[in-house]
Amino acid sequence: MAITDLFEQVRKKKPLVHQITNFVTVNDCANATLAIGGSPVMTSSPKEVADMVKLAQALVLNFGTIDDMSLEAMEIAGKTANDLHIPIIVDPVGVGSTPYRTEKAMELLDKMTVQVIRGNASEIHRLMGGDIVTRGVDSGALSISNAELALLAARKLNSVVVVSGAKDAVSDSSQTSIIDNGNPLLTKVTGTGCMATALIGAFCGVTGDYYSAAIAGISTMSLSGELAARNLKDNEGTGTYRTRIIDAISKMDQSIWGSEVNIHEEIAL
Amino acid sequence: MAITDLFEQVRKKKPLVHQITNFVTVNDCANATLAIGGSPVMTSSPKEVADMVKLAQALVLNFGTIDDMSLEAMEIAGKTANDLHIPIIVDPVGVGSTPYRTEKAMELLDKMTVQVIRGNASEIHRLMGGDIVTRGVDSGALSISNAELALLAARKLNSVVVVSGAKDAVSDSSQTSIIDNGNPLLTKVTGTGCMATALIGAFCGVTGDYYSAAIAGISTMSLSGELAARNLKDNEGTGTYRTRIIDAISKMDQSIWGSEVNIHEEIAL
Amino acid sequence: MAITDLFEQVRKKKPLVHQITNFVTVNDCANATLAIGGSPVMTSSPKEVADMVKLAQALVLNFGTIDDMSLEAMEIAGKTANDLHIPIIVDPVGVGSTPYRTEKAMELLDKMTVQVIRGNASEIHRLMGGDIVTRGVDSGALSISNAELALLAARKLNSVVVVSGAKDAVSDSSQTSIIDNGNPLLTKVTGTGCMATALIGAFCGVTGDYYSAAIAGISTMSLSGELAARNLKDNEGTGTYRTRIIDAISKMDQSIWGSEVNIHEEIAL
Repeated sequence: MAITDLFEQVRKKKPLVHQITNFVTVNDCANATLAIGGSPVMTSSPKEVADMVKLAQALVLNFGTIDDMSLEAMEIAGKTANDLHIPIIVDPVGVGSTPYRTEKAMELLDKMTVQVIRGNASEIHRLMGGDIVTRGVDSGALSISNAELALLAARKLNSVVVVSGAKDAVSDSSQTSIIDNGNPLLTKVTGTGCMATALIGAFCGVTGDYYSAAIAGISTMSLSGELAARNLKDNEGTGTYRTRIIDAISKMDQSIWGSEVNIHEEIAL
Repeated sequence: MAITDLFEQVRKKKPLVHQITNFVTVNDCANATLAIGGSPVMTSSPKEVADMVKLAQALVLNFGTIDDMSLEAMEIAGKTANDLHIPIIVDPVGVGSTPYRTEKAMELLDKMTVQVIRGNASEIHRLMGGDIVTRGVDSGALSISNAELALLAARKLNSVVVVSGAKDAVSDSSQTSIIDNGNPLLTKVTGTGCMATALIGAFCGVTGDYYSAAIAGISTMSLSGELAARNLKDNEGTGTYRTRIIDAISKMDQSIWGSEVNIHEEIAL
Repeated sequence: MAITDLFEQVRKKKPLVHQITNFVTVNDCANATLAIGGSPVMTSSPKEVADMVKLAQALVLNFGTIDDMSLEAMEIAGKTANDLHIPIIVDPVGVGSTPYRTEKAMELLDKMTVQVIRGNASEIHRLMGGDIVTRGVDSGALSISNAELALLAARKLNSVVVVSGAKDAVSDSSQTSIIDNGNPLLTKVTGTGCMATALIGAFCGVTGDYYSAAIAGISTMSLSGELAARNLKDNEGTGTYRTRIIDAISKMDQSIWGSEVNIHEEIAL
């Protein structure tokens, strides 16, 4: 499906996106999902996630504030999703910052087949077995481009991989796209990465072309961050900016995306 | 007490509203409670809810992200509230979507006397033993009006029942009111149902007339959603809308409510 | 270090502030930390807090929604922070409202050395062994000034103490400062106290002068609350106000602070 068609599809089909996510940005993820036209459900009790994911069109697993109970829920929901061919989108928040986080992410990926993974460069690098120490949940610095990293990770992890950054890269190992939208203010608001993953989840809920869905999701986030920064007045800061990000997501459509997105396909390495 | 008097009463008495609620919209519920003039406290550890509810004027139990621990806390707090004649307001979020959720809600209602229940049509229908499958936490479609459903549910559940929707209905089994305010954008922001329940909690904290309190709470929410949509500019979306909902709640008073609310009493069926 | 220099230091050094906090205002705390220039991480699993705090420049322990698991995490993280000389900032939210909450706070302070404590008058009073019953998480009324209380508490608790209120007081037992900024609307938005504590955490992450860091943090919050209330239009309420608080924090710098803060040192009692 063409990426430009996905916006209307999401608003028409209202995919239910089951998200087992963190308690920091869960409200932002729910609102971002609603803003793009999806329907969020955030339950994470191991007692009901299997029944809930059966109703969903996509499953998002976000590592922001993992603990033993949420990991148990992720495993149950993930296996059910695999059985039912419901796409799984993983956000390895902060992987690389602590051994617990890194080990549990690796274990999770061993236990299920994942359709899309979105993280910053250091998180993706660590998922591949790299040894950069992530500083908290922020990204580190790597010597290869996001596009190269996305491609290598997509090959190794057998998944569509999205590497977020100043330029975002998306690869399914045979194709790699680079999106050059965004604004530095995006790093000054919590949850922008998590919301990007939620958006990818919504798009994966309406198409089996997860590469296009991943591009639609990450570019919607970066472009919304760019649009939200326009016309900010001198006395408006990150509070107003955050509100306008959601505004921009809720206004995003084929027309705005088509005229504003800055995307190109990378020549294979 | 006349509904119009309740606004001043809440701001004067600042009722403490103890809410055992979900981690998605808990911040919204706290801000809505403060905006109408109440004082929220959201503790949900089974170790302290009995002591906390003793200090409260109302107890809100919200099913959004139940797990075994929060259910244990709800049971302890609910029994204490019953003993002390503190009103309990239940929001059966997502009941009908999974067996766990539906069973636990039924069990909870068996264990305590509840003064007000607020949900959408499918949630209320399921609480009555109906068999519609709720899609996630969204509402389904039913063949009877919200007013009929509220009345039947109020009779069966021995509680004031609020059915939220395009038109909201409130019934205490002898009287039924319909509120025709709101805006479709209310479904595009997470937490608007939960906030309505929190507002009902605040009003129940200042009067023993729970029917009037329920009307005051749900109509404040729907009317605030209607007022927030006025004068939205072309580039303003659901982010700005969400901010203005809280603005409208914080500005709501006898005068605005009296001139803007669209309410009528339903003839008994 | 001069207080006015701290704003630039935080934006330059981006201290990682590990916060084990409550699920009501955790998103606000993350955004406030980012707005002032810090980097927040909110993980609270006992399995990884020791590893996470090692990466941090400050540790914030907030009592808003304590339970046995978060208390275990606080103890592990606190002991690690003490071993590594990472400053600990405690927010005893609601202490005095339930025996569980009061006892656990006392126990926690016995188990670790704390550099800064911030609370309202009744919370600080209870931490010192006083017997006022806190109403929910709101402050009570005491017969001594915030400055006197801060000084007495600093002496007894061997910590910098911040007492928040209409006038904020900060004492390290040898010096006491009073900040007379703020706005009554600050009490109508959830999380303003928690955000103040998060800001103190960010400033403690760039200087060993915790007295100055505490003044910088609490005054940034109160002053941002004052600036956010300016130019609010008639139809703008607590939703817009909340957005502008974050705006003001993100715009705060040496120049704005220097020209707007109303601070004086109290003569020793």
